[in-house]
Amino acid sequence: MRDFLPSDVRKREYVIGVIKSVYRSYGFEPVETPAIENIETLMGKYGEEGNQLIFKILKRGEKLDGSLTADAKAGLTDLALRYDLTVPLARVVANYRNDLPKFFKRYQIQPVWRADRPARGRFREFYQCDVDAIGSASMVVEAEIIGAAIRILESLGFDDFTVRINHRALLSQMVAKAGIANEVDALVALDKLDKIGTEGVVKELAARGITEESANKFLGSVTGTTSFPDLDRVLELCASPRVKIDPSLARGLSYYTGTIMEINVPDLAGSLGGGGRYDGLIGMFGKEQIPACGFSLGLERILVVMDERGMFPPEIAQSAAADVLVTIWSDETAAESLKLAQDLRSSALRVTVYPEPDKLGKQLKYADSIGVPVVCMLGESEIADGNVTIKDLNTGEQATVARAEAASRIAGES
Amino acid sequence: MRDFLPSDVRKREYVIGVIKSVYRSYGFEPVETPAIENIETLMGKYGEEGNQLIFKILKRGEKLDGSLTADAKAGLTDLALRYDLTVPLARVVANYRNDLPKFFKRYQIQPVWRADRPARGRFREFYQCDVDAIGSASMVVEAEIIGAAIRILESLGFDDFTVRINHRALLSQMVAKAGIANEVDALVALDKLDKIGTEGVVKELAARGITEESANKFLGSVTGTTSFPDLDRVLELCASPRVKIDPSLARGLSYYTGTIMEINVPDLAGSLGGGGRYDGLIGMFGKEQIPACGFSLGLERILVVMDERGMFPPEIAQSAAADVLVTIWSDETAAESLKLAQDLRSSALRVTVYPEPDKLGKQLKYADSIGVPVVCMLGESEIADGNVTIKDLNTGEQATVARAEAASRIAGES
Repeated sequence: MRDFLPSDVRKREYVIGVIKSVYRSYGFEPVETPAIENIETLMGKYGEEGNQLIFKILKRGEKLDGSLTADAKAGLTDLALRYDLTVPLARVVANYRNDLPKFFKRYQIQPVWRADRPARGRFREFYQCDVDAIGSASMVVEAEIIGAAIRILESLGFDDFTVRINHRALLSQMVAKAGIANEVDALVALDKLDKIGTEGVVKELAARGITEESANKFLGSVTGTTSFPDLDRVLELCASPRVKIDPSLARGLSYYTGTIMEINVPDLAGSLGGGGRYDGLIGMFGKEQIPACGFSLGLERILVVMDERGMFPPEIAQSAAADVLVTIWSDETAAESLKLAQDLRSSALRVTVYPEPDKLGKQLKYADSIGVPVVCMLGESEIADGNVTIKDLNTGEQATVARAEAASRIAGES
Repeated sequence: MRDFLPSDVRKREYVIGVIKSVYRSYGFEPVETPAIENIETLMGKYGEEGNQLIFKILKRGEKLDGSLTADAKAGLTDLALRYDLTVPLARVVANYRNDLPKFFKRYQIQPVWRADRPARGRFREFYQCDVDAIGSASMVVEAEIIGAAIRILESLGFDDFTVRINHRALLSQMVAKAGIANEVDALVALDKLDKIGTEGVVKELAARGITEESANKFLGSVTGTTSFPDLDRVLELCASPRVKIDPSLARGLSYYTGTIMEINVPDLAGSLGGGGRYDGLIGMFGKEQIPACGFSLGLERILVVMDERGMFPPEIAQSAAADVLVTIWSDETAAESLKLAQDLRSSALRVTVYPEPDKLGKQLKYADSIGVPVVCMLGESEIADGNVTIKDLNTGEQATVARAEAASRIAGES
C-alpha cells in the first residue's frame, strides 16, 4: 500500500486526465462501482489463484460467534474488496439492463485490491482504467477499443508500443491439435511464456501431466505465424501498423471467449494493458447472455515507464503549490493579507498565505523552499499607501505597485 | 453501497472539479492514501462507536487457524478500511515529516467506509473532501479553511448556508461550570441537540448519570450568546457575514482541541461539512506534536441538496455520451466509418460509432435514444463521392457535405 504525496498525485491526475479525455472522445461514459462487493459476486470469476487473492471483509462483531472450524471460516465474511472492474461491470449491466442503452460503452477508473505479496511494480492496491463496450458481437467494437488505447498512449507520448492480438478459439484449436486435454492448464502455462521461456513452459506443462511431445507441438504452433478470420478482420478495421497477431498471447483470466489483446513496450516486463471479448460473463449475473468486449490500462505501469523515461510535461513534473505567497507582517495586518489573497484568487491566481507573522526573511525562504516563484509583501506602509511589494524569487527583483495592479503583475512573473 | 451510472458520475465529477479547483486556488496540494490501513492506525481514534464501525479485513487463509475464542477474534484481522481522511493524514505527516514543508496544506478527496446501517443520505461508502493545514497554531489557518469552504459552496451556487463555529475550550468551561464531570458524555449528548432537542439531550444526560439541574445549567449556557477570544479572532479574520459563533455546536469526534466548525443549509438535517483544530492527533503517530486544523465537505450531502434544488448546470444535468454518431452501412464500409470517426475526433468532437451494420432507421433511433444530437451517415454513394450526410436530430434537417467540412458543420449543430 502506498501513500501519494502531491508530486505523485499530480502525475497520476495528468495521466488519468488524458485517459478520460480520450475515452470520452470515443463516446464511452463514466461508471463507478463500490469498493465492496458481495463475496459471491467475486468468487469463482477469476480462477483458482484469483479466489485466493480476494481481500475478504470480516463480518461485524455481533454476527461473529461459535468456534472457528475449517468450514466456519467461510462464515466469517460476506463482503470482499473489488478485484477488477470487469466483474462489477457485468453485475451492473445485468442489474440495470433496462436503464442502459442497447449498446453501452462505459469507462471506469478506480482502484482494485489483491492480497498478493507486493513486488517491484506490483501493488496490493492499484488503479485500473477500463473501457468496455456491451451489446454487440461486431468486431467494430474491438477496433474502437484498440483505437482508443492507441490514441491514449500516443497522447501520453509513447511511440514504441505494440498491440498484440489473439483469439481464444484459435488457442483452443492449437491446444486440441497438440493432443492436450486440459485447455486451462495449457493456457495458464502459455501465459508465462514471456517470463519463463519455452523451456519453462514445457516444464510447467509436464508438471500438469502433459507430455513433452504435446508440449513441443503446442509451442511450435503458437510461435509460428498464423491467420484467423476474426483476427484478420480486427487488423483490417484497426488499420494501424501497431496492431499485430501473436498466436502465443494467452491472457490469464478465464472469462475471455473471443479476441484477446495486450499492449507492450520494450522496456517493461509485463504489459501496459490488456483485454478481450467476454461474451459469457454477463449471463452469469442475469438471465440474458450479452456480448461484451473490454480493455484495461494499468495506471501504475504507465506511470513507472513515464517516470523512468522522463515523459511528464515540465508543468506537471515541477508544479508548485501556488503561483504566489502573501506574507503576514503582524497580527494587526493579518486580516488585510487574507483580503489581498482573496482578491488575487479572484484573478485566477493560486495564492497561499504564510500562516503567521514571522521574520520577512523566513517567509521568503519558505516560499522558495516550496517552489512558489513570487512573493507578495504587505507591510504597514504598503497598507497605508494602498500598495503591495512584489518580489520575483527567480530574478530577485522587487517592485512596489498599486494593489489594483498586483494580479496582472504577478501573472506576468509566475 | 451504490453503483453510479453515467449521469451520477458526471454530477459527482462536476462537484469534485469545483472543490479541487478552489482548494488549489488556496494553495492546498493533493495527497492520496491507501484504502487499507493497519488496524492499529485506526482503532482508538474515533471514539467507542467509531471502533465498532470500522470495516475489518480478514487475514489471508494461511494465517487463519486455531479456534475462534473471544480473544481470537482480534487475531483474525490486521487490516481495516479507511474510516476518514484525517487520521491517515496524521499518519502521513508523522511518517514523511522530513519530505514535507514546514507548513503543509493538503487536500484529499477519496471514499471512506463505515460499517453502519444504511439510512436516507447515510451510506456505507461515501466520499470526503478534506483540506487540512499542518504546522501552525495561528487562526489564519482557520480563516483560510473556512474561506475555501465558503468559496466552494458559493461557486456551486449555494447562497443560504451558515458556518457555525465554536471552541473546545469554551465547551469545556461550560461543562465544568455546570458541574458535569464527564466532558465526553456531555459533548456526545450535546452533539445530538439538532436531532433530539433540549428535552432529548436532558434525557440522554440523565441516562449518563448527570442531574437535571446540571443538564439544564449546561444547556442554558450553550444556548445563550457568547464571546470567546479565539472565536472572535476567527470571525475577524474571516470577515464574512456567513460565519457565526454557536456555543451549542459540538462535533462528535474526540480528537478536536480548539476551534470546531460546521456548515449547514436550512433544508438538510445534518451538515454539509465540518471540521476543527486537532493539535494532539499527529503526535499519536510520531515523536513530534504538530498543530493542525482541517475541514471536511461531505460530497454525498452536497449532491443530495443540489439534486433536490436542481442546481446543476444544464450541460452537466443533460450531457449525452457523444456529440455525433457515425453510422455503419455495411461490413464492407465499416472500416471507412471508423476512419471518419477518427478524423472527427481529431477535430475535438466526441464521436461514437454504431457498432454494426443495421437498418438506418434503427441507427438513427438509437442515436436519439442516447441523446446524441447529430448523426453522420456514410453510405456507398457518400464514400464514392468523398461526402458525408449530416442529420440534425433536433430539427430533422439533413445535408450532404464534403468530408473535409464535416467536423465544422457538426460542431455548429451539436
